[in-house]
Amino acid sequence: MSIAESAAAAKQASILLAAVPTETKNKALAAVAEALRRRSGEIAAANRADVDRARAENLVAPLLKRLKFDGGKIREVCDGIGSLIRLADPVGRTLSGIELDTGLELYKVSCPIGVIGVVFESRPDALVQISTLCLKSGNAVLLKGGSEAAETNRVLAETIAEATTQAGIPSGWIQLLETRQDVARMLDLDEQVDLLIPRGSNAFVRYIMDHTNIPVLGHADGICHVYVDSAADLDMAAAIAVDSKCQYVAVCNAAETLLVAEAVAERFLPKVKAMFDSKGVELRGCEKTAAITPVKPATEQDWATEYLDLVLSVKVVAGVDEAIEHINRYGSGHTDCIVTGDRATAERFMDLVDSADVFWNASTRFSDGFRYGLGAEVGISTNKIHARGPVGLEGLVIYKWKLIGSGQVVADYSEGKKTFKHRPLI
Amino acid sequence: MSIAESAAAAKQASILLAAVPTETKNKALAAVAEALRRRSGEIAAANRADVDRARAENLVAPLLKRLKFDGGKIREVCDGIGSLIRLADPVGRTLSGIELDTGLELYKVSCPIGVIGVVFESRPDALVQISTLCLKSGNAVLLKGGSEAAETNRVLAETIAEATTQAGIPSGWIQLLETRQDVARMLDLDEQVDLLIPRGSNAFVRYIMDHTNIPVLGHADGICHVYVDSAADLDMAAAIAVDSKCQYVAVCNAAETLLVAEAVAERFLPKVKAMFDSKGVELRGCEKTAAITPVKPATEQDWATEYLDLVLSVKVVAGVDEAIEHINRYGSGHTDCIVTGDRATAERFMDLVDSADVFWNASTRFSDGFRYGLGAEVGISTNKIHARGPVGLEGLVIYKWKLIGSGQVVADYSEGKKTFKHRPLI
Repeated sequence: MSIAESAAAAKQASILLAAVPTETKNKALAAVAEALRRRSGEIAAANRADVDRARAENLVAPLLKRLKFDGGKIREVCDGIGSLIRLADPVGRTLSGIELDTGLELYKVSCPIGVIGVVFESRPDALVQISTLCLKSGNAVLLKGGSEAAETNRVLAETIAEATTQAGIPSGWIQLLETRQDVARMLDLDEQVDLLIPRGSNAFVRYIMDHTNIPVLGHADGICHVYVDSAADLDMAAAIAVDSKCQYVAVCNAAETLLVAEAVAERFLPKVKAMFDSKGVELRGCEKTAAITPVKPATEQDWATEYLDLVLSVKVVAGVDEAIEHINRYGSGHTDCIVTGDRATAERFMDLVDSADVFWNASTRFSDGFRYGLGAEVGISTNKIHARGPVGLEGLVIYKWKLIGSGQVVADYSEGKKTFKHRPLI
Repeated sequence: MSIAESAAAAKQASILLAAVPTETKNKALAAVAEALRRRSGEIAAANRADVDRARAENLVAPLLKRLKFDGGKIREVCDGIGSLIRLADPVGRTLSGIELDTGLELYKVSCPIGVIGVVFESRPDALVQISTLCLKSGNAVLLKGGSEAAETNRVLAETIAEATTQAGIPSGWIQLLETRQDVARMLDLDEQVDLLIPRGSNAFVRYIMDHTNIPVLGHADGICHVYVDSAADLDMAAAIAVDSKCQYVAVCNAAETLLVAEAVAERFLPKVKAMFDSKGVELRGCEKTAAITPVKPATEQDWATEYLDLVLSVKVVAGVDEAIEHINRYGSGHTDCIVTGDRATAERFMDLVDSADVFWNASTRFSDGFRYGLGAEVGISTNKIHARGPVGLEGLVIYKWKLIGSGQVVADYSEGKKTFKHRPLI
């Protein structure tokens, strides 16, 4: 089947899937978990073949680790499916209702987006997570995983397709793409594919964003900032800076730049430098920073760099306004934090920093769907429309307007024979 | 000023505008209305120059009419501003709140999108409407109107900029582009411009959509359908078909195709043919239609054509499922109507037709922001994300997440020292 045919089949299935009741979707999800458990031997065998091949091809250790998908991982994704079943169905919610006139009622009702294209890297768990999120939200999905995981992904997709079709889900709703050429072709299918969710490296996500007219949900960079204000509790500030940088360095919500108000720089910097030294973090500072504590000099490029590593750029700023300006200039619109004891300053920061997540006295690492209590995370978005920040199931739905009349025509209203009531119904 | 500089100025202003209080925005809107009234002589003079030039260049009569912007039109846009002032501010609404843990509260708060690029054709009223909508929703705006209206638009933009700056709105928030080259360059400025709203012809909107990475809010076509089911009240069906086609033919929510269930075609078609004849509507029918009533033959191309004229394509279908399939294949995802007395059939139609607006027993012409009671209309969108159908002010806002803590770090939660509460706050 060509990618255009796969996309057409997914589109076809998506129409029917939009009307599948919650109960059927939940039963199908349970059937997926059951099938994954039942076929866990087969899945593990396919995964061993992938891992062996990857090892022979000298894949680096962290990627090998992510590629591995065995009994423990299968149990984890099945637990995830259990949680997903318990979440409310995002489809079919009445978002507003208004009586336009007697016997003419308008409802805004949530519905699936349609066909979602997801491109992810080596972790096979992502295939199960994203396809079950799409199913719960009534969307068809085109999936392309990392080529290292080809065998595993094939068995997983087949298992999910089979289990869901038997449970009454329209066949064709899940389609696996296998080559990079398929992905390139998918990027052109804006008639069939309604939304792309790329998961992976900065360069990869940016490539997708730059090569398609299809809307993209996601983020390329995560250059996150911690700003330590002159009115900050400096112990709190140090703890937040260290957690934001070090708690897990390889992720998008880790801090990359520390901004420090001039008024507290002399007291704060030596203290936090010692803490970062003990964690093995290299600091790269502006001239003012270097005048206070020994650091490597930061270049212009450092302010625009997502290290994803034990490196932190440090800049002394005059105050909150320079911090806001710096963040809006160099940041990614992802997650930025102010540490201050002053409410007005904090509110100014949170209002004027143009980022998805603006934090006051809390680590940037809280920026995450599970920590936010969304129940499931589709991804983190730095988009300015549709969905922003950590995105839960509600990012996979849109709405349609249902107007229920009894024969009304517009001529009667434009000629003044009738007038609108516009009375809220809910 | 180059377009890149204009966009940068707008971006800069948008940051500050996001935090401007409702009262200041409303006062600025009132100042705009006042300034338009005060300078109405100057505006009318500029418009006369545009109209004279357009007449000399042989602009067709309907466009000349749209171009005209005199005392009556100025009063109309000022009334519109009065209504806009009375609408609730879409910015700063708390959409959700959750206590993650003691002293760690997360709020999802609506905020402006940022910088909106709007490209519209000849009507100068559009400049006032769209810029005041952007102001109310806290967005900066880059505007490009039709070149026929250049003089009028220049005076209007200057009047609005001056009045709002004096009223405390950050200067630079409104920028007028003057050439087509400016528009082409704006399409590349995805770092500065967050959303494009093109208003105009099908070909024009499609051109914009195909030449930018910036998200576009709008619709290209409006191929809307009326499906007359076998369980329809045929008098009602005829009235809805006639209103949908004829009440105003040149607009996107007018019907272009009539689908008729085979079971009622012999009774319905001759009756509705007579009504369309009296309105001067040319029917183009499928073979089955032609066998019942004299019509021009429809070609494959007719099903995919937005006539915007007194022409209607007519097809006899087996029933609701064939109607749904036809609409999802040839339609624009805009507005489609079923006429039926059967609730289950209507629900099937409304669930499976993948359109922004799905109507049961009401004219497609109701698909409009003012008729929907939205108070103001930004445009009509056939997008599958962000905003769909008639879009009010809420289409010009997104949200940010504000997390208010008291020094919390993620390490405490990942190490099990603390656990999340996730208690809803609102």
